[in-house]
Parts: sequence; structure tokens; C-alpha cells
Amino acid sequence: MSTAQTFPSVNALTAPLIERLVADAGALRLAVTQGAGGARMVDAGASVRGSIEAGRRIAEICLGGLGTVTIAPTGPVAAWPYSVTVHASDPVIACLGSQYAGWSLADEEGDSGFFALGSGPGRALAVVEELYAELGYRDGGSKTALVLEAGAPPPASVVEKVAKATGLAAGDVTFIYAPTQSLAGSTQVVARVLEVALHKAHTVGFDLHAVLDGIGSAPLAPPHPDFIKAMGRTNDAIIYGGRVQLFVDADDADAKALAEQLPSTNSADHGAPFAEIFSRVNGDFYKIDGALFSPAEAIVTSVRTGASFRGGRLEPALVEASFA
Amino acid sequence: MSTAQTFPSVNALTAPLIERLVADAGALRLAVTQGAGGARMVDAGASVRGSIEAGRRIAEICLGGLGTVTIAPTGPVAAWPYSVTVHASDPVIACLGSQYAGWSLADEEGDSGFFALGSGPGRALAVVEELYAELGYRDGGSKTALVLEAGAPPPASVVEKVAKATGLAAGDVTFIYAPTQSLAGSTQVVARVLEVALHKAHTVGFDLHAVLDGIGSAPLAPPHPDFIKAMGRTNDAIIYGGRVQLFVDADDADAKALAEQLPSTNSADHGAPFAEIFSRVNGDFYKIDGALFSPAEAIVTSVRTGASFRGGRLEPALVEASFA
Amino acid sequence: MSTAQTFPSVNALTAPLIERLVADAGALRLAVTQGAGGARMVDAGASVRGSIEAGRRIAEICLGGLGTVTIAPTGPVAAWPYSVTVHASDPVIACLGSQYAGWSLADEEGDSGFFALGSGPGRALAVVEELYAELGYRDGGSKTALVLEAGAPPPASVVEKVAKATGLAAGDVTFIYAPTQSLAGSTQVVARVLEVALHKAHTVGFDLHAVLDGIGSAPLAPPHPDFIKAMGRTNDAIIYGGRVQLFVDADDADAKALAEQLPSTNSADHGAPFAEIFSRVNGDFYKIDGALFSPAEAIVTSVRTGASFRGGRLEPALVEASFA
Repeated sequence: MSTAQTFPSVNALTAPLIERLVADAGALRLAVTQGAGGARMVDAGASVRGSIEAGRRIAEICLGGLGTVTIAPTGPVAAWPYSVTVHASDPVIACLGSQYAGWSLADEEGDSGFFALGSGPGRALAVVEELYAELGYRDGGSKTALVLEAGAPPPASVVEKVAKATGLAAGDVTFIYAPTQSLAGSTQVVARVLEVALHKAHTVGFDLHAVLDGIGSAPLAPPHPDFIKAMGRTNDAIIYGGRVQLFVDADDADAKALAEQLPSTNSADHGAPFAEIFSRVNGDFYKIDGALFSPAEAIVTSVRTGASFRGGRLEPALVEASFA
Repeated sequence: MSTAQTFPSVNALTAPLIERLVADAGALRLAVTQGAGGARMVDAGASVRGSIEAGRRIAEICLGGLGTVTIAPTGPVAAWPYSVTVHASDPVIACLGSQYAGWSLADEEGDSGFFALGSGPGRALAVVEELYAELGYRDGGSKTALVLEAGAPPPASVVEKVAKATGLAAGDVTFIYAPTQSLAGSTQVVARVLEVALHKAHTVGFDLHAVLDGIGSAPLAPPHPDFIKAMGRTNDAIIYGGRVQLFVDADDADAKALAEQLPSTNSADHGAPFAEIFSRVNGDFYKIDGALFSPAEAIVTSVRTGASFRGGRLEPALVEASFA
Repeated sequence: MSTAQTFPSVNALTAPLIERLVADAGALRLAVTQGAGGARMVDAGASVRGSIEAGRRIAEICLGGLGTVTIAPTGPVAAWPYSVTVHASDPVIACLGSQYAGWSLADEEGDSGFFALGSGPGRALAVVEELYAELGYRDGGSKTALVLEAGAPPPASVVEKVAKATGLAAGDVTFIYAPTQSLAGSTQVVARVLEVALHKAHTVGFDLHAVLDGIGSAPLAPPHPDFIKAMGRTNDAIIYGGRVQLFVDADDADAKALAEQLPSTNSADHGAPFAEIFSRVNGDFYKIDGALFSPAEAIVTSVRTGASFRGGRLEPALVEASFA
């Protein structure tokens, strides 16, 4: 009898989701075109209107087909009742192995000034990030997709870089892009509430292989046409309105430490809307305390001992100030 | 690169949903028979028991396959926790182009006294309503369905009228009917919480093409065997317990005006259970202030400016009085 | 025109769900092996980690494909926001005809000491329980599945007993097992919140054929490595944190009596965490007042009269004490 865990393939699991997204382009108000090198480009909010439903589906693609994203009529913040719930049964592979926007994609050859962070199953084919060594995960596949929080399709040099790194022809790569200011962009970023918790767990040194399951929720951030404000709102939705529960195979001391260290309340920058913090550091992202990027509230349940620990607190007034 | 928006086909999108409804008739407690002219009749609550799940699926058919209807364990009214959430990424086509019960279908030739308002994708084939000129929408298709809030199947003259107007043979039309008093009927009517908001937006002169996305929720109304009381409850679920958020491409003045004008609180008739208002006007529907037919509370978010505006208020005590 | 109700086949409806569970074993962290007699064994939490999503899907298999189980970000107990919602449009067949863990399966020939209560669609093929005579339900099928709340696969003698009783070859039976202490086990047990209500309705003599529809919700119980505490928590989730609404075809007196008799508040044992009650009776399950096994709160709606009746009350403090 074999009980060895085999890693799921995020590319195999997302292939049908990507085709369904493209097939439903009309209903979701997406534009599907051919870009540089024959790559398939799915515009979900740049020159088209897109939709919250497109963002929800894009978030499930980001999660490598390992998680569900649902819209609920109630959530952590009463005044902004419509919320996003993310549930992933293998949150480390789903969120860090696929969803995390960790692949830096700049146009190094052209003069477009294009820059975006690649998210989604294509990252697990390319494995250019150091994180993959720690995850011990690498995926295969003959087609793939990357999701970009961007207002324009990637230029030829970026398409080539992705094709080369994934070992695929450009024509086998689908790029899905939407700016933060769009309905789909805002939705798929808020759906990172669980991923951000995993990333913070990683940062504080928690053993990722001990994270078994996770659920997160956060209010749907209303889009804003200004990039800084749109980014501020999606961050505030998570930082001040996000709530996660993680199920870990760890002893009480480690689970307790995680619950205490995980929430955004630990950050020196906690307490102001994100856009304000961003302008305070003159837009230098790297001057913001990294500890801020995490949900407002965490419950960490140790399946080893049965104990649950809590940390942080929701800040509904800050969400309301940000979304107003 | 083409970014032109093409309208989705509500008939193509609903075709598989209709076949699945029929295939699951046993589990959903529906009766499927052949009616006048060979039309397919799906009884979802007249001579059969039907179910809330049947109502939920019928509501998704009404929405032209462009929206989702889900049951949540919490919602706008605490004392009636089980609620319906409706989300449509193209709410104008979904709700007005398909779901709105706008096609008046009376038995003009027989003596059955049959009268019902047709809802669903068949309307977009027939386009007999003036509303379609404003929507600029017309659908094609070789099969279709109409949903009727009715306690009996449509008679031959109505089947013929629908076949003629849609240009199809009667055998290619599916009629799905359930009275307001049934589980399915009550559910699919409450699932009009978003449609009612769109209709009100239209009535107050808001540019429908500016409505990009929408979500609504309302408590599941317990069915009542008396038609007036059943109708009263489904209306009260929306009028006093319904909440919507619309995302519009409009400036602040228009978005603010919509948020203020949309809710039922604007109506002179606001404040009494619907069944009481109905009896006050001796059952003359047209004497009721049209402004009453809208959700209790509205949030309108302008994606053009990022501002959100609110109007109305939930009236949980009135919902409780109505449902008691 | 025929409106006769035909019973749905829980085995036909679950066949695709079972195959999908097996196909997604990697993503859900299940182990699929061949057991005694060639029966298919799906380990969902004994020697593998499993997942909440596996538990959710197993619960839908238990319900005979007649119900949905969803995870919501809010629910009956504020401090434990993530909750399970169960909705079944034919709750008697779904919950009692399939989900109820009513088939006693002990290893009578071997010395394994194995004992489990069989749940799921296989019960409706075997119909060895008296309950089936009352339900008037018996299913057919060429393949089936049983779900076991157990930490080990069933031994050869149990497999043979099941094969014989269902009239199938062992190779056509799938056993899905997970201990109460696992993520999947805990989830699928809490998803019995509606079933427990149906069972209690049966116990207090309510006519089961009068129950038309039902929805239940309860907080996700955090797993505990100790069996007694794990069992305590899943019971407390329902007994002190569970809420159901039943829709019945009954007159007011019967609906009112059901609402009053159904909740756990009627039990003499009500008021202490389940694990404490269990130790008080020295682990003799049959000394616990059977009236305790039911949801904390009930709403019973008579579709015959339109009236709704309420009974019981949530006890969030007891849930918090149990889960802490």
C-alpha cells in the first residue's frame, strides 16, 4: 500500500479552466488576441470592461486549480458585505507554488517600460525563483498560463523570456492581464488574502511543509481609476479586512508564534490606509515594512495538538476609510 | 487587435442548463411532459413539490447563463439567515435582457383565463418588448426556454404565440413554470433582487449601458399557500431585506443620484408589508407606487471615479412581520 | 400527464462524484489502493493528510448526490467564522436514505477489532436497516460506495459482508474512510448537521414524507488528535453551533411541535461540551440522552399554512469552549 504524497500538477489542473475562460470571453467581457510570437493574450480589464466573475476565475487559475474562490453576501467587514473567500487544500502549492506574483518580468530589450510580476501555473514550469527550491516543487506540461497585474499585454521580449524559461513555444503560453484598477484586477488581487498569509508564514520562518489547509476571506475592494488608490484598496482589503484560518501540523509553540506573528498588526506601518503609507515613502515599495503585507486577523489550528491560536484584529474603520 | 464587445448569447449559454434541469427532474422533483404543440413543459411546483434547488437553477436559466445564484447561511436579515445571492457580470443583459418578467402572455383565444409574464432567454429571441430597442440586444438560437410564475402550464394559444414570436417550432420551446406559492417559485422570484435594481435604474433614467457588474442578496422567503401572501413575502424579501451593489461607469453625480433614487425607501408606499399595500389598493397592482419595487439598500460604485454611494436601509422588522 | 414522484438513484447520482474524487486524489491528498477482495480503498485522512475539500466532497457523496455542501466565510458562530452549509432538496432520501451512518459494520470473523458505521449510497443498495422500510426507498446500481468514519480500511470480512449485502462484487465497491481526527473526517461529520435534524424528526415521530426541503449550517470544527475530543468537537459544532431550516408539508400544530422538539436544548444532557458528557457516562454512548443529537436551533416552515416556528438557541460560548 502506497501512501506517498505525489504533488499535483498545477498546469494540468488549470488547463481546462483556461480554455473555459477563453470560451466564455464574450460573457465575461474579455478580449482574446494573438500577441508577440503567437502567444495568446487575454485582456481582462485593460481595453475591455472585464468583470468580477472574470477576476474570480482568474484567481482560481492563479491558484493552480487547487483552490476555490467564491463571492459571499457577508464577510469580515459589515459595511462592505460582498466578500471573496479563498479555500485551498494544499495552500503551499496553490498559493506559493502558483498564485504568488513572484516572477519579475521586465522588458529588458525594448523601450516599453513594461514591468509586471508573473503569477500562476507558468511559474512552476519556469522555476526561476529561489522559492521553488524550498518548496521542492516543479511542474511539467505542454501548455501554460501566466497572470499579470498589468494594463498592457507583455511585449515580445517578455513573451520570449517566458517561452524560453518554460521550455515552450510562445504559442503554447496564455497571458492573462488586467490592471489593478479594473473589476477583474481588483478581485484577483483581493483573492490573494490566503497567499499573503502563506508568504508571511514563510517570511517569519514557519515550516511551509507543515501548512495543510487554509481558508481566507476579505471584502471585495471597489476599483479605483488611480493606480495608487486601487492598489491601496486591494491591500487594505487584506491588511485591515482580511481573515485567514490555517491548519498546521506543528506543536503549540510554533502554531502560537505563527498566529501572533502573522497578522498585519505586527507592522510598524499598521494603522494608516496603504495608499497613505505608500505616499509617505514616496512610492518606494521596498521602504514599506514587509510585515504589513498580511491579513488583519489569523486563526492557526494545530492538527497535532488540536489547539487553535489567534492573532491580529480586523480594522473595519480603516477599510471603510480606504473604500469610501 | 480587436477589443470590440460582442454580446453573449443567452440562449446558447442556457441550453446546457435547461437540459441538466430536465435530466435531474427526479432529484429536483419536477415533472417533465409534452404540452400543446409538442412544447416541453417543466412543472416545478404546480402539481409537484419541486425544491429550492430547482428554483435556484431556474433563476440561473432566467439570468441567461450570465449569472450565478447561490444559497448562503447568512445574509442581510439576521433572523432569516438563509439567503440568495445573485451575481451577474453583465447585469443588463442577464437581468433585463433575459430575467425580467416582461413578456405578457395571456390566453387570448381560449377561455382558460391563463395569464403569466414570460421571463428568460426566450424573450431575447422574440424581442416583442420595447425594452429590447433600448438594450440594443437580440439573440438567435434554434431552441429556447421561457420561465413562468404560474400554477398551470400555458395553453395552446400561448404556446403558439411564443413559437411564432421566437420563430421556432413549439417542440423547440421549453416552458418552465412554478407558482409563487411553491419552493421553486418563491426562490426564483427572490433571486430577482438584482433584476429589480436594474429595472429601477432604468425607470429613474440611469444609462443602462453604464452598469458593468452587480451583486444582490435577499433572504429566502418562506412560501405561503395563499397567492397574495406568497407574492407579498417575495416582494418584502427584496423591498425590505434586499441589498445590491452596482458597479457603474458614471460620474459621481450620476452614481450618487442612482444610489439615492434606487432603494424602496423612496416610495410613498414604503413601510408596510407588501400584501397589506396590495389589499389597500384592492389588488390593483398598477395603483402601487412603482418606486416600491426595488431593493432596500443600495451601494453604487463608480469605476470612473472610485467613489461609492449608498442609499436606503434594510428593514428587518418588516421582513420578520411578513415572513412570520 | 404524469406527476408521479419517482425516487432519484443515489448510486447513479454519486457515480461521477466518486470517480472525480479518485481522479483528484493527488490534489486532495488521498491515497487510493486496492483492498481486500479487490475493493477500492480511498484513504482520506488515516495515513495521508487529506483536506477540508476532500471532506466537503465526501459529504456530497454521503448525501447521495442530492445535496450541496459549501464552505462560507460566516455562519452561526461569530468566533469560528468558517462554516459548512448543507442543502438538500430531498433531505429524507439524501440524509436518511444515504448520508445517515446507520449500517453497523464490525469485523465479526477476524480479530482486527474493526468497527465502523457505514454511510452513503451503498446503504440504499444493501437496505439491511429497518429504516428503509419506513422510507420506502431502495436503490439499484452496478457500482457503489460506502463512507466510513474510521482510521483504517475495512478488513476482508467487512468487505465481503458489504459485497454480499449489496449484491455486487467487492471490486465494484469503493470504501472511503477518514478518522474523526482528520481534516476530511471532521468536515464530513459536521456536514451531518441537516441529517441529524432529520434523524431527530424521525425519532420524535414526525412524518418523514412531509419533509420537503432543508438547509443546515454549522462551524467547521478544528480537528483534534484525540478521538474523544475530535468527536466532541464535531458533535458540539452541531449541538451548540448548528442551525437548520426545514420546509414541511404539515399543519401548524405538527410544524410547531417539530420546531420545539427538534433542537438539542430539549436534552437533559444539554449544557456541557460533548466530550465532558461522554466521559461522565464513562464512554457508554447509549447512556447519553438521544435527544442531544440535534442542531442547536431550528426553523420549521409549513408550506401548507405558510407559518414558521422556531425552537432552540445557539450556544456560542459552548462552541468556543469546545473548540479552544
